[in-house]
This record gives sequence, C-alpha cells and structure tokens, in this order.
Amino acid sequence: METDTIAAISTPMGEAGIAVIRVSGPEAIQTADRIFKGKNRLENAESHTVHYGYIIDPETGDRIDEVLVTVMRAPRTFTREDVVEISCHGGMVPVQNVLEALLTSGARLAEPGEFTKRAFLNGRIDLSQAEAVIDLIRSKTDRAARVAMHQADGRLSRLVRRLRDEILETLAHLAVNVDYPEYDAEQLTAQKILDRCRSIETELDQLLKTARQGKIYREGIATVIIGRPNVGKSSLMNALAHENKAIVTEIPGTTRDVIEEYVNVRGIPLRLVDTAGIRETEDVVEKIGVERSHRALEEADLVLLLLNYAEPLSEDDRKLLSIAREYTTIVVVNKTDLEPKLDLGEVEKLIGDCPLITTSIVKEEGLDRLEEAVANLFMEGKAQSADATYVSNTRHITLLKQAKQQVRDAIGGVESGVPLDMVEIDLKNAWQSLGEIIGEAVAEDLIDQIFSQFCLGK
Amino acid sequence: METDTIAAISTPMGEAGIAVIRVSGPEAIQTADRIFKGKNRLENAESHTVHYGYIIDPETGDRIDEVLVTVMRAPRTFTREDVVEISCHGGMVPVQNVLEALLTSGARLAEPGEFTKRAFLNGRIDLSQAEAVIDLIRSKTDRAARVAMHQADGRLSRLVRRLRDEILETLAHLAVNVDYPEYDAEQLTAQKILDRCRSIETELDQLLKTARQGKIYREGIATVIIGRPNVGKSSLMNALAHENKAIVTEIPGTTRDVIEEYVNVRGIPLRLVDTAGIRETEDVVEKIGVERSHRALEEADLVLLLLNYAEPLSEDDRKLLSIAREYTTIVVVNKTDLEPKLDLGEVEKLIGDCPLITTSIVKEEGLDRLEEAVANLFMEGKAQSADATYVSNTRHITLLKQAKQQVRDAIGGVESGVPLDMVEIDLKNAWQSLGEIIGEAVAEDLIDQIFSQFCLGK
Repeated sequence: METDTIAAISTPMGEAGIAVIRVSGPEAIQTADRIFKGKNRLENAESHTVHYGYIIDPETGDRIDEVLVTVMRAPRTFTREDVVEISCHGGMVPVQNVLEALLTSGARLAEPGEFTKRAFLNGRIDLSQAEAVIDLIRSKTDRAARVAMHQADGRLSRLVRRLRDEILETLAHLAVNVDYPEYDAEQLTAQKILDRCRSIETELDQLLKTARQGKIYREGIATVIIGRPNVGKSSLMNALAHENKAIVTEIPGTTRDVIEEYVNVRGIPLRLVDTAGIRETEDVVEKIGVERSHRALEEADLVLLLLNYAEPLSEDDRKLLSIAREYTTIVVVNKTDLEPKLDLGEVEKLIGDCPLITTSIVKEEGLDRLEEAVANLFMEGKAQSADATYVSNTRHITLLKQAKQQVRDAIGGVESGVPLDMVEIDLKNAWQSLGEIIGEAVAEDLIDQIFSQFCLGK
Repeated sequence: METDTIAAISTPMGEAGIAVIRVSGPEAIQTADRIFKGKNRLENAESHTVHYGYIIDPETGDRIDEVLVTVMRAPRTFTREDVVEISCHGGMVPVQNVLEALLTSGARLAEPGEFTKRAFLNGRIDLSQAEAVIDLIRSKTDRAARVAMHQADGRLSRLVRRLRDEILETLAHLAVNVDYPEYDAEQLTAQKILDRCRSIETELDQLLKTARQGKIYREGIATVIIGRPNVGKSSLMNALAHENKAIVTEIPGTTRDVIEEYVNVRGIPLRLVDTAGIRETEDVVEKIGVERSHRALEEADLVLLLLNYAEPLSEDDRKLLSIAREYTTIVVVNKTDLEPKLDLGEVEKLIGDCPLITTSIVKEEGLDRLEEAVANLFMEGKAQSADATYVSNTRHITLLKQAKQQVRDAIGGVESGVPLDMVEIDLKNAWQSLGEIIGEAVAEDLIDQIFSQFCLGK
C-alpha cells in the first residue's frame, strides 16, 4: 500500500471552462482542506459531496481561484483511497497555481498513470482493466472505444479468470491422481484431462482469433500511400480525411512536425503515417529505392499504391508494383475521369493477389470501393460484432499464445504418456501465463513500465 | 429567462485522465438521468452530490463510458439553473460520445460562453465579473490571473457600484433643488454638487491610472525583436522563453503555424509576435522597409532592437535605429563577450530617449538588465501592488473615460452656472456609463458579442 498523497492535473492542457486537479491518498482531504475556503470544512464533508469555495495561496492567503471541490472517501473511489477532485477555471495559470498550492500543502506530484496504478495495487481493477483505461482514452473510433470499454468493464478478465479456474480444477484432478494413484484409474484421468485441455485450447484459440481485429481497433492500421508525382496522393489523403473526420494527434515530446492523422474507415482507424513527408515529397520513386523508405513500408500494415489511369504504365510504376506486392497492398487506379491510357490487364498481371480498385478522387468516385477493399482485407468483409470479447493488447496476445502452447504441451504430454507430474508443470505454467494478463504475480518493474505509458493525471 | 437545456464539453480537447461535460437548464437532471445507469436515479439525488455509474448509448443501450455525475440543483449553481457535470474518461471518442448521447437525450449544444451568459442573465454575476472569468482563463502570468480573479470576485463591480450610488445621491440632492428651489439655497447646493463631482472625478482618475498596467497584465506586451542577421535574435527569444517558462498558445481557427509565445518578465506577459517568422527570416533589414513590416512595428507595444557589439555600426543598423526610435524601443547591444568594435557613443546619439542595455546572451549576461528595462518602461520601475483594483478591459476603460468626461461636463456646468437640470443630464449619463460596465441597461447585441468571445463549454 502506498502511503503518500499524490496530486496532478487530470484534464488536458489548454484554455477551457473547466480544469480538474485530482488528489488521492490518506491525506487527500486534509491536504485540500488546508488551502480551501468555503462554507464547510472538507474534513467534515460526507463522501461524494461537492463544495463551493476558493483555493487560497497557502503563503499569501490570496484567493487563487473559485472552485468546486468533490470529496470522495475510501473505499468507494477510483483509487480506493480518499480522493479529492478540484474543479477550477480551465486556464494555464489558475490550474498550475492550484496544483502548486496542493504541493505546498503536502501533496506529491503524481507520476504518469499513478492514480490508475493505485486503483490496480489496491485491488479495485485488475491489470487488463487498467490497460483498457488508457486504450479508451486513446481510442480513435467508436468501435475502438467500445472494445476498450468492454475490457475496462472486466469482460476479458472474467473470461481469463474462468479459463484459469478450469485449469485449476484440472490441476486438482491431476494432483489427486498423482498423490493417490490407487484412487482412480490412470487411464480415465488422462482422458478427462485431455478433454478439459482441448476445450481450454479451443477457447484460447477463439480469443486469439479476435486478436488481429482487436489490435487493429486499438492501434489502427499504419497506412502508407505511394505513387508517382501528381497521381493524387495528397488528394486521396485529403479525401479520406475529409470524408471521415480525421483526428489529428500531435505526438508529445517530438517536434511539431511529426503528427499522426487518423481516419475512421468503417470503424477501422487508418493511421496515415508520416503524412507530412508524403505530402511534400514528390520524388517518391527515387526514395522508395532507398533503404529508409523500404523500412517505412515494412512498418506499414497497409500500402496504398496509386497508378494514373490517364498514362501508360511507366518504368517507375513497375518498380513500385514489384516492391508493393511484397506487402499488404491495395492498388488504386486513379483519374478514371480522364481518357484511359493505362493497360489494366497488364496491371492485373503484375499485382499478384493485391486487390485493384479504380477511383476518380476529383469526382469523388470510388472512395467507397476503396473503403470496402480495406474492410475486406482487415475485417474479412464483415466486421465482427463489437459485442465480442476482443483481445487487442500485444502483451495479452503474447501471454495467450504462450498459455495456448503450454496447454498444447500438456495435451502432447498426456497423449505420449509422460508422467502426470510433468503435465502438471505445463498446466501450472499456462495458469501462470493467464494470470499475468490480469496482473497476478506480475513483477513490479513490468507494472511500473505499463503505467509509465499512461498520461499524467490518470 | 432561458428555457432550454444546454450541454457542452467544458475541458480542453486532448487525451487526458478526465474530461467534463456540463449540462445546464430546467431539464438538466432529467436529460442526464435518461442516459445514466447507476445505483441511484439522478432525479432523486440531493443537490451537490456525486454519483458513480455508466453513460448508456440511448439508441443501442451500450455502455459508452464509466463516469462520475455531479448533480447541482438551482439556484446554488454556476448558472443558477439545475446543473449536471459528467466527468468521463478524457479521450476524444468517449467525451464526444457522451456529449452526443446528451444531445440525443434532449439537450441543445451550448454556444460559446453560454453558461456564463446564463450566470449573468440570471443575476449571479454582473457583466464585468463575467468578463473576468474569461480573462482568468486566458491569463498568462500569476499577476494577470490575480487581477482577473479580483475582478471576478466583484472588486471592480463594488467600486463602480459605490461611484454610481454617489452619483445617485448627488442626483437626488439635485432633484430636490430642481423641484423645490425654495427648499435650499441654490448656492449651497452647487457647492455640494461640485465637491461630490470632484471627489468622483478623482476616484475615476485613480482607477483609470491602473488601466495601462491592467491592460498590460490582461493582453500582454506585443513585442517584436529586430536586428541584422546573426545578431542574436533567436538566441534572445530562446533565452527569454527558457528563463521564463514560455506559454505557447495555438490560436484556434488558424493554421498550425500561427502561434503566440508568452514569456513572463517580472509578472508582465511579453507576447512575442510572429516568432516563427522572425526566427526564420534573416533578411529583416530588407523586410523592414516593406510596408508590411512597418505595420508589424506599429502594432507592437515594444520593439527590441539588437545591435552587434563586435561590429561597427552599419548602414543597415542606422536604418533600423532611425525606424525604431519612432516606437517604444529598447536598444540591446549584444555580444559584449567579443572584442568591442561598436561605438557606443555614436549609438547613444542616434537612439533618442530609448533605453540602451548591453548583453551577452551566449554568456547569459544582461538578461536581468533587459527585464529591468522592460519593467521600467511599462511599470514605471515598480509594479503596483496586485492588490489594487485594476481596470484592464478596453470596454471598461472606454466607459470609465466617458463617465469621467460626463462628470467633468457636470462640473463645468455648475461652475459656469448653467441650469441645474442640464447638470442633471450629465450626471445621469455618467451613472449610465458606469452601469454599462457591470451590464446594467446594456443592449442585447452587445451582450451577445461579449459572450461569443468565450470558449465553448464556459
């Protein structure tokens, strides 16, 4: 259990009506009370009540801001500790001053993710739920938000817990047999264990089948648009962004030029990679040969290769085609509003299995076909119901794969007749792997690492 | 009185722990209740209590987000109407989805400033207090925040109300005399009125004396740095920004390139104008001749002209000096760490009354002298106590000047013996002018205009 009281600004920086500073810890209420002046003392406040008043500079006694203070007493709080939320005016200066007053009054500045970490350490949520909180905040589409929300709700956790319980029952069965071999016919036990393990393997398999879509919802599809100069790369990007309400995020800690642009294509977040570079650079063909650009393609989940319908296939186009077919590529033949000079048959021979679609971006034709091609490629045509339990986090996927292998090892062991106490080890490992998803018996440095990726004030 | 229920996101857009959506109006609680699922119904909630639960998509019944909902019943609220604040996860998608659910449930999207406008229309705060709210949010330094906070607290309003009361008493006195001239010796009345008016004039004068500093705190000093290439313009800008925790604001609605950078120099917000341009453009001398650059100087409150201590005065320097001395300029002789080649005596002859200071920015020397020169120029050496009642808003200053002129007209009238009912008109006008500061008898379109400058959700 943590024993100090932490504080941080929990709303984004910027100018707005309201900003919220959150305080959590055994001294949260007293710390806030020392700098609060209102009709009532916070120390006497009932839980889950709101109090109007002023935050006072602890050094000068000056009024810093007019505030509403919410008092929530442990354990019915986000962290299960006493929590105070101060809602002040949303300017840079007032919010900083309120935070500084809290620090002067005895709170410590919270580390990124520290509130959620406490919620986890104090047992209010498990690790996969904590990870879903940050997924929810970062979600770029409704569907991504819903997948995260379900995970935050504990859907994945409940499924994992049930599978662990089943493994545990199997282990109990095994233990009885190992300790009292006379108690049961060994043959019967083996059959029972096999049945159980196979059923668990099937469930793990089904969950892992959602991983690809889950990861796509969570992280978006890293998309690179390539093509010769003037084929319509910027227009395509703009059309996608325009049609789909792009969400532009500046990546903190980098220069202002590095931005991520997300467009929502049928619920799938397409992350347009290094768009600034692509918009400016017209010598893509030249660059594509360079090692560096190859890497960009390798890191992409999807390549959109644009060809010009109004020009015959050039040597550059051929080069691009031969490179692109190594990746997950959609070939987009653009400018179908112009007189055709491109030999589509020749293109089809060169693109292998890559889907081919035609568009006229200036005439706003064919974008729906492109979106359908994207959905076909990544959602097998139909997006699964968002109500399914998805696994989306790479850490979880790795652990599920590991658990699945361990269950298979157990099955293999039983089948080849190895001693049951060897099988026991495999099943214990699987139980352990699943436990790590929800944060049981996880090393402290892994926990620190997970929560350090959170934003401040969460 | 407004009769509909409004909702808006009240925290800045971005990714963070918390976002707050505010709802206000007669149906606020019912509107939120329809999309809320928790242990208690909000409709039965006591005022100023907080409720844990979920926001439900009104169409699908899906959980949108896990929230804390604060219920505050009229009249003890920001708007004096029923107010609900929904605190949800601070991501773009969850917060938008909660807002949309509220709109589906019957709320209307609030206009910028509409919550504060309702607080004003419902009589909780007066107009100058409402204007202070937005000043507080936009404040760039502690001192600016304090000036705004005092105004929000009603300090300026109380002073203005007292002056109005005094005018009213004088008017009552006058009225008695006009209606019943036999009741008092006219000579005595005139003397009393003169004394009163002079005392009011003095108070208005004192208030107007705070206007320059008040405006500086509120709006910052628009500062332009000029000088020949490589004289240290960017270094100066960086040094100022580095020493003083720059606040960079992107101006909404413009391209991402237009940014404002504020540095806090002894409590004075220096607004570095068009810094991007200055950083990149090294042909300043050439540009300075152009009409457009002249305009930049004309709009500046302060020009910092940099000269190179290690080079003799050039023709370009002379041109810059002759232009700069038309403005409020501080001449900064930089690079005093190098061997001197500049004739300081000659510079002093060319700069007129402009202060001259020497710096070595690379050696971090002289920045304190520059800051002192800025303080001298704009705060007459000593900043006034932040406890004074400042007037900072151009609208208020104009009205105070108007009132002062009207009081002077009244004084002039009495002195030259015009009939007292003519004097009465002047004093009534002064009373009216002061009333407009706090929003009494103000035209509706002016109110609309004032509140439309607010941010959304306030």
